[in-house]
Amino acid sequence: MDGETGGSAVRDDGAAMMALIAELYPICRSITGTGLRHTLGILQRLVPLTIHEVPSGTPVLDWTVPQEWSIRAAHISRLDGTRIVDFAAHNLHILQYSRAIDRVVPLEELRGHLHTLPETPDWIPYRTSYYRDTWGFCLTQRQLDAMIDPAYRVVIDASLTDGSLSYGELVIPGATADEVLISCHACHPSLANDNLAGIAVAVMLAQHLMRSPQRLTWRFVFIPGTIGSLTWLARNEAAVGRIRHGLVLSCLGDAGAITYKQSRRGDAGIDRFVAHVLRHSGDPHAIKPFIPYGYDERQYCSPGFNLPVGCFMRTPNGEYPEYHTSADNLALMRPASLEDSLAKLKQIAAIIEGDALYRSRNPKGEPQLGRRGLYRTMGGLSDAGHDEMALLWILNLADGEHSLFAMAERSGLPFAQIRSAADALIAADLLEPVTPA
Amino acid sequence: MDGETGGSAVRDDGAAMMALIAELYPICRSITGTGLRHTLGILQRLVPLTIHEVPSGTPVLDWTVPQEWSIRAAHISRLDGTRIVDFAAHNLHILQYSRAIDRVVPLEELRGHLHTLPETPDWIPYRTSYYRDTWGFCLTQRQLDAMIDPAYRVVIDASLTDGSLSYGELVIPGATADEVLISCHACHPSLANDNLAGIAVAVMLAQHLMRSPQRLTWRFVFIPGTIGSLTWLARNEAAVGRIRHGLVLSCLGDAGAITYKQSRRGDAGIDRFVAHVLRHSGDPHAIKPFIPYGYDERQYCSPGFNLPVGCFMRTPNGEYPEYHTSADNLALMRPASLEDSLAKLKQIAAIIEGDALYRSRNPKGEPQLGRRGLYRTMGGLSDAGHDEMALLWILNLADGEHSLFAMAERSGLPFAQIRSAADALIAADLLEPVTPA
Amino acid sequence: MDGETGGSAVRDDGAAMMALIAELYPICRSITGTGLRHTLGILQRLVPLTIHEVPSGTPVLDWTVPQEWSIRAAHISRLDGTRIVDFAAHNLHILQYSRAIDRVVPLEELRGHLHTLPETPDWIPYRTSYYRDTWGFCLTQRQLDAMIDPAYRVVIDASLTDGSLSYGELVIPGATADEVLISCHACHPSLANDNLAGIAVAVMLAQHLMRSPQRLTWRFVFIPGTIGSLTWLARNEAAVGRIRHGLVLSCLGDAGAITYKQSRRGDAGIDRFVAHVLRHSGDPHAIKPFIPYGYDERQYCSPGFNLPVGCFMRTPNGEYPEYHTSADNLALMRPASLEDSLAKLKQIAAIIEGDALYRSRNPKGEPQLGRRGLYRTMGGLSDAGHDEMALLWILNLADGEHSLFAMAERSGLPFAQIRSAADALIAADLLEPVTPA
Repeated sequence: MDGETGGSAVRDDGAAMMALIAELYPICRSITGTGLRHTLGILQRLVPLTIHEVPSGTPVLDWTVPQEWSIRAAHISRLDGTRIVDFAAHNLHILQYSRAIDRVVPLEELRGHLHTLPETPDWIPYRTSYYRDTWGFCLTQRQLDAMIDPAYRVVIDASLTDGSLSYGELVIPGATADEVLISCHACHPSLANDNLAGIAVAVMLAQHLMRSPQRLTWRFVFIPGTIGSLTWLARNEAAVGRIRHGLVLSCLGDAGAITYKQSRRGDAGIDRFVAHVLRHSGDPHAIKPFIPYGYDERQYCSPGFNLPVGCFMRTPNGEYPEYHTSADNLALMRPASLEDSLAKLKQIAAIIEGDALYRSRNPKGEPQLGRRGLYRTMGGLSDAGHDEMALLWILNLADGEHSLFAMAERSGLPFAQIRSAADALIAADLLEPVTPA
Repeated sequence: MDGETGGSAVRDDGAAMMALIAELYPICRSITGTGLRHTLGILQRLVPLTIHEVPSGTPVLDWTVPQEWSIRAAHISRLDGTRIVDFAAHNLHILQYSRAIDRVVPLEELRGHLHTLPETPDWIPYRTSYYRDTWGFCLTQRQLDAMIDPAYRVVIDASLTDGSLSYGELVIPGATADEVLISCHACHPSLANDNLAGIAVAVMLAQHLMRSPQRLTWRFVFIPGTIGSLTWLARNEAAVGRIRHGLVLSCLGDAGAITYKQSRRGDAGIDRFVAHVLRHSGDPHAIKPFIPYGYDERQYCSPGFNLPVGCFMRTPNGEYPEYHTSADNLALMRPASLEDSLAKLKQIAAIIEGDALYRSRNPKGEPQLGRRGLYRTMGGLSDAGHDEMALLWILNLADGEHSLFAMAERSGLPFAQIRSAADALIAADLLEPVTPA
Repeated sequence: MDGETGGSAVRDDGAAMMALIAELYPICRSITGTGLRHTLGILQRLVPLTIHEVPSGTPVLDWTVPQEWSIRAAHISRLDGTRIVDFAAHNLHILQYSRAIDRVVPLEELRGHLHTLPETPDWIPYRTSYYRDTWGFCLTQRQLDAMIDPAYRVVIDASLTDGSLSYGELVIPGATADEVLISCHACHPSLANDNLAGIAVAVMLAQHLMRSPQRLTWRFVFIPGTIGSLTWLARNEAAVGRIRHGLVLSCLGDAGAITYKQSRRGDAGIDRFVAHVLRHSGDPHAIKPFIPYGYDERQYCSPGFNLPVGCFMRTPNGEYPEYHTSADNLALMRPASLEDSLAKLKQIAAIIEGDALYRSRNPKGEPQLGRRGLYRTMGGLSDAGHDEMALLWILNLADGEHSLFAMAERSGLPFAQIRSAADALIAADLLEPVTPA
């Protein structure tokens, strides 16, 4: 697609994304707070992100921006002082948004606050309780099985205070006000595929787009899930009408094939563009219809917005065993998967940028390509060459109603081939842009 | 569906339908006359039917109400007086609308008036000749094979006289003038599946609907086939525009799976509602496109009316060997089939009554279900619960363009689940009805 | 279809087409010149063709009518005078539109002007160079392999002079100005299937249509490929809007099954009519979507015209090994294939001519067919007869929106059966034509 995607450049991209994921992995993110802010600060090193702070208590649509949660320490100890579960050992040990506690708790009562995964006894689950006043720990089943004392000391040094919700936004201005929205949730602590992989791929995609002028304006948002997209939508309600295409990126580093979840519309441009790239890739892939469960596409595709936003993943949320557990870690990441996710997104971006309406300047009969050097001069052969077919398809369909993408779809040729044949026809003065009425 | 459909109540329904079929079976019905009138009188005992009488000679569309046919006796005897075929033994022995005769007929001539089924030599066929002045007998092939005398005495004591065509009509008024039409033909003598089964199921469905207030007005008609629906249409021409949905019921008691024949439109609400119920039933079933041959849907779906009326059957007319023979008798009836036919019709009725347009009161982003007690409070789990998915689907699709039925179809959830989730959202003030412009 | 298509008449047609192909085969046609003119003269003997002459240099759309190419002699000889390749032996030996030459050419240089088919070493290829100033010979691979002398004498006695492009046009006037276009290319020398077969079938189809009055005006054009259709379009630009249906005919004599290439529209009447005839034929066949490569449909279907013109073939161009070689000769022709091609085209013509909109005069309920002698009088049988179903379908669909063809498609019955049932209903005063508003 672009000149830099040779083998070693791609491998460099993979290594860069792995390094970013590794750097971000240890941070304890949540939907507010220092971990999220720290994460956005690291991204700012790589792309010129604007960080927005929205005060606690701000009404956003049907919701309210919550207080900031600060977690300093959390552990469960035997009464002799031995720590048996310690937040310092793993970010996932604490139920997110737990309130403070410091007391001896009988095991019977404590059990109601402990979350494990009995079927994978060495993994710690990821659990949250943003909007309910409670506390809890997540631990391995083996840790729980070893807890046989009648009572334990439980300490959570956390606080909920007025502060703000942070999110990062990057706008890459294009020639037009039409926008493309790329959205990643950045609120998960120590989970790699969900969603450090999405964040890393998004950053590299942004860097790629910034290297050359774009036709559309590209807007990247790095937000806490649900409350972040609601906040962004509430603050940008007047502007969302400019969004022509959008993607939520998540789970882009595991070994699985690409899964694309369509927008609520199901037949939006983005839905067709992604399907085109996946079909022509020759790689296994899955395309799934929209359902109102998943990531922030739930909000972008709510009926009052109904934005053309799909969700681009490898193995989807909930469909890999490591999902929302301590096993969604760096070992699950595949550099080749990250590279492939990025490469396909660049191809999708090339369609978003390159699709346009053109009209043949010689719509009646075929123009004589031979005298313009665009056609073989020998007649009688059985087939047209591959590139000649692209020229013929464009001239046949350039009626002002078929976009280049529609031509690619109807001809069965990959978009890139149609795009370059169109450029040749434009250079030969045989094709002209259609300016919207 | 409704509170009474517990196991024993269902079995009671089956027994009640069997009893009604058994009571009606011996009556010699035709498209006019005392048998039809007697039948309607029995139904009147069960539902408050109005019986209409339309005088012979009344023009109805392109047809004319025929004279009443009265059949008192009919037999074929050897010249020694031995009766070998006797209408008193089976109603089907007489060709319907035969004229009177009393003379000795040579076997050669008689053969032209005898109808048999050579492939099922113990069965008597059912034949009619409503609009041609002739006479005839239907008998078993074995009876015919035994007829070796050179001549027989033939007696038919029948008359055609001016009288009237009878049909029964039951209107269950609803909150709106929109109507649902349920039509059964009631003209067949001593045939159980076709159509005493349809009549029995219709009566029980009517009783069910009368037990609670309905939104639509339900109109049940019990009519002689063809001429009866033509007569009803001719007399109600101005009102048929109120019919929103309709079903012809027939052949609902045999052991076969449900077959639904679509309306002429093919995509009417009733076509989609029936398909939904059948799909979600998990039972084998068949959906067939409209053809202009069959029961009274031929008339309701004629181009000048084109009503949204399909035909709901188990094994269709002509597709079971006993069809239109003496073998379509009580032994062919299965109580469980009658119960299943009724249960599915109640589910279809529940969609007809329960489908409506609603609009989300929080269309921008998802409303916060948790603080309204409609959503689990723990985050991080892999799946939404089943009922939560119904809530999310409704909130996502309640844009004023998707009816509850459309939501059920798009979500893949059964209508009843969507309907009850919608009720929960209405109670939480999250959903409001769309009043038509 | 018509009375004359009995077995022997069909065989006569096959023989007549074979004879015409054999007569035309030896002529050296090109896109201009005496061979083309001679061919059109022979066709004029069979149908009243008008021959148009368009001067060299005339601008036609983006092209210009070329000079006339005259070829008198062409040969390659050893320096001892032995002719080893001679145009007099086969028309295909000369690269079409070669310029004159008469000199000794070193083998090395000569090779660049020689065209062979290495994989079929006994076949001569067909090559052209209409719009580039060059020269060349086509020969068998065996001939080339035998050329081992260092140099050969090369003689081409040809000239390019101002003259005219010739094409033949036959108009069979119909009751309406609506037109059907049948187009054959007539520029190929000594190639039988491509396209003497198409020409022969077209001539017989024209003769068939001239035998009885037609509703539409049928226009047959016999033209040089590409430049001929461009010329015809340029000269008839104002009139092409009258074309309702069209077919390019080619490759209609080989042993393969029928292949129909759809018009650019894909859902034009002609596309559906041809598919109907092929489906009901029970014969193997293929229907392919439009691609902008092939015969003159490329021009008719260019975006500025977008005419409803498909291409009717047996084995398509480029898909049989003999295509554009000396093996596309009389031995490839099958009389039965020519007859079958013609028979199917007659059926297509019968739909084009016979399709129309009718309205039932009794749209409310079914009219009583029995008293009009159009329906069996005995009731109770399991099935309607086949012809009764055609009557019922027409009466059910004759709402002024379904044409007879739409009725044939919806009912699954062949058009001819619907057409004759419609005639019976018209005779019974039950059906009336819909006159367009």
